[in-house]
Amino acid sequence: MKNLIIASTSTLHGGEYLDYLLPTLENHFKNCDTIIFIPYARPGGMTHDEYTERVAIAFSKINKKIIGLHIFKNPIEALEKAGGIFTGGGNTFLLVTQLYENDVMQTLSNVIESGTPYLGSSAGSNITGISMQTTNDMPIIYPPSFKTLGAIPFNLNPHYLDPNLQSKHMGETRETRIKEFHAFNTTPVLGLREGSWLDVKGEKILLKGNLTARLFRQNQVPEEINPETDLAFLGN
Amino acid sequence: MKNLIIASTSTLHGGEYLDYLLPTLENHFKNCDTIIFIPYARPGGMTHDEYTERVAIAFSKINKKIIGLHIFKNPIEALEKAGGIFTGGGNTFLLVTQLYENDVMQTLSNVIESGTPYLGSSAGSNITGISMQTTNDMPIIYPPSFKTLGAIPFNLNPHYLDPNLQSKHMGETRETRIKEFHAFNTTPVLGLREGSWLDVKGEKILLKGNLTARLFRQNQVPEEINPETDLAFLGN
Repeated sequence: MKNLIIASTSTLHGGEYLDYLLPTLENHFKNCDTIIFIPYARPGGMTHDEYTERVAIAFSKINKKIIGLHIFKNPIEALEKAGGIFTGGGNTFLLVTQLYENDVMQTLSNVIESGTPYLGSSAGSNITGISMQTTNDMPIIYPPSFKTLGAIPFNLNPHYLDPNLQSKHMGETRETRIKEFHAFNTTPVLGLREGSWLDVKGEKILLKGNLTARLFRQNQVPEEINPETDLAFLGN
Repeated sequence: MKNLIIASTSTLHGGEYLDYLLPTLENHFKNCDTIIFIPYARPGGMTHDEYTERVAIAFSKINKKIIGLHIFKNPIEALEKAGGIFTGGGNTFLLVTQLYENDVMQTLSNVIESGTPYLGSSAGSNITGISMQTTNDMPIIYPPSFKTLGAIPFNLNPHYLDPNLQSKHMGETRETRIKEFHAFNTTPVLGLREGSWLDVKGEKILLKGNLTARLFRQNQVPEEINPETDLAFLGN
């Protein structure tokens, strides 16, 4: 049975890394002591080791051990044996490129399907959708494909931002960008605001946190989705 | 001799389409009556015909005729014979995909090199750089390559936005995204604020408009560039 927590952001303004999610994560990872961390999305500023250490400090508060996937000679085997998996944020183009280059995209999909508890934040959440095509990130590297895990039957836009009506900036709003996506793609897109996450258990996909999320469907008026709504209907 | 106007935006807040640039464009296109317009970047909301008509209305104020590239059976020949070319904004992933699919990327590069006056705004400006990898757009379609015209020896970030220090949003700032680009790429990036443009004449690349632009180079502190600075040194 699929078992995922898919978070808009790792960190809330003024908060510590993952703090707001720790009570949820304690339950989510209750059957494993060690979690494999995928640091691939981080494009610099911090090494994979440093990023893993940062995650380890956060998870130590709920007594979980963290091991970075980058230290394994055989990352496929590491994921297959993992008791739990966390993919952190950064740049989605880089993350997807590295998942393909390390030949672990299919394995990650398989272990999620078979029930390994998964946590994603930001870029690590983007990849749970059908494609990475509604990311906010810059195309700093050319991935072999935009196709991602498809663990949920729609796409995500993490860190969703409402239009700033005071702005004099003429660049596209997030809503306009997602509308552009729907000129060529039928996949629904969920704009997940910071502080929201999805709790996926089997076929159920519940919106969690205090905020509504914004749902965009091709040729339809966007709608606000309330917390505790089951989004499984988007797969029908 | 290369002859380009490369604008951050087509429209200023509160202004009409291209209005702020018309005096410049009247001189830029002084030797041609008809300009070929490339509408490929527009992902919907407006047909190519409607987009071309919008451009035609703006250019009628300086007595120029506009013909959309999309109506030509042989777009390569159309570009080769063009007296002037304008590529409008929209989505850069779409624009680059269509330039490759219509097999005109190389032709466009050739005619720009040989001196056909070119105007780009937003996505149409992005493509004058080495690659489209510093676009702000969403990857709504998968292009065959991120490589673009290389008419200038650096990349652009049009609609450049300074960080909002009041914001509680945890998504990356534009500056952070460009820094991520430089984790993997050595190409300099010029953040071109709305209202700024580059005037390229032969090897000279002058910053125009009233604003400074922000220059990002790998492993260097970003710097503000004053109007009238010649950016040709970035190619050395």
